[in-house]
Amino acid sequence: MLPSTSDSAAPAQKIENLVERLRAGDSRALARAISLVENDSSGVAEVLSACFPYTGNSLRIGLTGAPGSGKSTLVDQLAKHYRAQQHPVGIVAVDPTSPFTGGAILGDRIRMQSHHADPGLYIRSMATRGFLGGLASTTADVASVVEASGKTRLLIETVGVGQDEVDIVRLADVTVVVLVPGLGDDVQSIKAGILEIADIFVVNKSDREGADRVEREIRTMQSLGGHGEGWVPPVVRTIASTGEGTGTLVETIDRCAEWLRQHGELEKRRADAWRERLLEMIRRRLTHELVHHRMGSSELQTYARAVAEGGQDPYVLVERLVRGLLDLHSDGPSIPSCN
Amino acid sequence: MLPSTSDSAAPAQKIENLVERLRAGDSRALARAISLVENDSSGVAEVLSACFPYTGNSLRIGLTGAPGSGKSTLVDQLAKHYRAQQHPVGIVAVDPTSPFTGGAILGDRIRMQSHHADPGLYIRSMATRGFLGGLASTTADVASVVEASGKTRLLIETVGVGQDEVDIVRLADVTVVVLVPGLGDDVQSIKAGILEIADIFVVNKSDREGADRVEREIRTMQSLGGHGEGWVPPVVRTIASTGEGTGTLVETIDRCAEWLRQHGELEKRRADAWRERLLEMIRRRLTHELVHHRMGSSELQTYARAVAEGGQDPYVLVERLVRGLLDLHSDGPSIPSCN
Repeated sequence: MLPSTSDSAAPAQKIENLVERLRAGDSRALARAISLVENDSSGVAEVLSACFPYTGNSLRIGLTGAPGSGKSTLVDQLAKHYRAQQHPVGIVAVDPTSPFTGGAILGDRIRMQSHHADPGLYIRSMATRGFLGGLASTTADVASVVEASGKTRLLIETVGVGQDEVDIVRLADVTVVVLVPGLGDDVQSIKAGILEIADIFVVNKSDREGADRVEREIRTMQSLGGHGEGWVPPVVRTIASTGEGTGTLVETIDRCAEWLRQHGELEKRRADAWRERLLEMIRRRLTHELVHHRMGSSELQTYARAVAEGGQDPYVLVERLVRGLLDLHSDGPSIPSCN
Repeated sequence: MLPSTSDSAAPAQKIENLVERLRAGDSRALARAISLVENDSSGVAEVLSACFPYTGNSLRIGLTGAPGSGKSTLVDQLAKHYRAQQHPVGIVAVDPTSPFTGGAILGDRIRMQSHHADPGLYIRSMATRGFLGGLASTTADVASVVEASGKTRLLIETVGVGQDEVDIVRLADVTVVVLVPGLGDDVQSIKAGILEIADIFVVNKSDREGADRVEREIRTMQSLGGHGEGWVPPVVRTIASTGEGTGTLVETIDRCAEWLRQHGELEKRRADAWRERLLEMIRRRLTHELVHHRMGSSELQTYARAVAEGGQDPYVLVERLVRGLLDLHSDGPSIPSCN
């Protein structure tokens, strides 16, 4: 049995039941399990552990692009396409405006309506603040739970600029970067930064003036990059509002996934992603142990005040706390004498 | 003496010398110290510890806004203004495009030129990827080192959308949110998300059409928010390209800082910021101990592969690793018997 990470863990049987129900297609159980993960509630390790055997088989597609690129509409079109192919689909959307406005939940509702509550489609928006374990790590856990509910296509959508977004996209098997004509020079400068994470470029709203120029710029950057022998990210044109180009995009994603599989890249990417997740999980557990069991939250607040007032060197303090936790002794391990 | 976090720490004397030199105004020593922090090199705890007594007295101003809002130009104008007031100024700019393109360094050079290598002004751009300790935490450490070099005004500039940016802005005493007319609805929707972190709103490029509308929208949001008795974020109009409004902005920042000081808010903010920093420092130290001393990086890679292939439950694995690290035994502490 897995040791609980909290004193008040949910009973193992209840957890088992929850995972059984979400496996059977109960979307309320799925929502409940995701909430446990998002709130880092007790029993979360058990939920994730019970979900784990049912993960690893779906294709994870990451989509990123600037606000206004029509990313969400494109994700909806992809979902429609995969549903027509009989794939159960999960969408995890990371929404930077939601933490303050509650926009995420509202967004879910609006989007859900257009799919007429199709039981083969599950959409979850996530706020971008307040996750103890880090945003990328929490997104990964949420994606795993959604996948365990039997989804074979996972769409992970995020606004792409900062480190968080790049980290999230790295959880995906295939990464699609969505560009759009006419967003102005400042926004387009982001392109240079996402060249390296893109497996596929989409020029969305491609009926707009400037689509040719965007594609030309991508090609120019690619020729400068000197990619060598690897996968050269293709450019796919779409008009998400009408669905034009979605079929081609789906085919391109499949082709990319196949290429990655054949070249051992998919395996490598997944191992790399797990490496980061393991590190983050370890970090989270150790911090939890320190803050919740070794030191109270009010003790931490007292330390923080002392540091802010200049009376306590934080670097000396942290060293002392960590050494206390790990039972490190500068003169080597203490061996009790038995004389 | 502070225990070293690495086997090959720089000699304590060298560190002391480095901090002495940066205190004396040697900008090369400052750059060197910042690089140590950014790369999490050995000796970094000693550098930060030696800098700590010289921090806490400057005013930290965070500026955030969408790409294209003219934020950097505004920061430059503020710096000019503070220099005219004889304040030594430090600028820490977090640049999301730089990790891939090297844009940060180029940007520094271009901006430095316009200030004619003024020794009372130090500008440092930071990439947004690859910091072991987390971006916000590394930015905080860099800001501390810059402050220790004698700067009394610190400008922390970041593109504002994701969690990273919000976290960075929370390091500041006073937060300025820069908006601009005519960036389109999608970008303006970010406004709702940053209402809660803004102490001051700037409508930059205020000679453009739509400035009135932006200000009206801010007022409307504020009236909906029901702020009650606290500080109501004023709206300042600027034209950063000509410097218009910078004087008013400086006065407004001073007024805000004074209000925060008188209401105990400044103290509270700084303690809260240190609470987060302490947690992050603890997390970083624990991870370092784990990956560098208890488990090799190749061992971690082996675990990651096993998990990715489905043969190893990561949640069971992490629990085992953490328990081993903390020397926890489910049946209580093991007491060696002596007979």
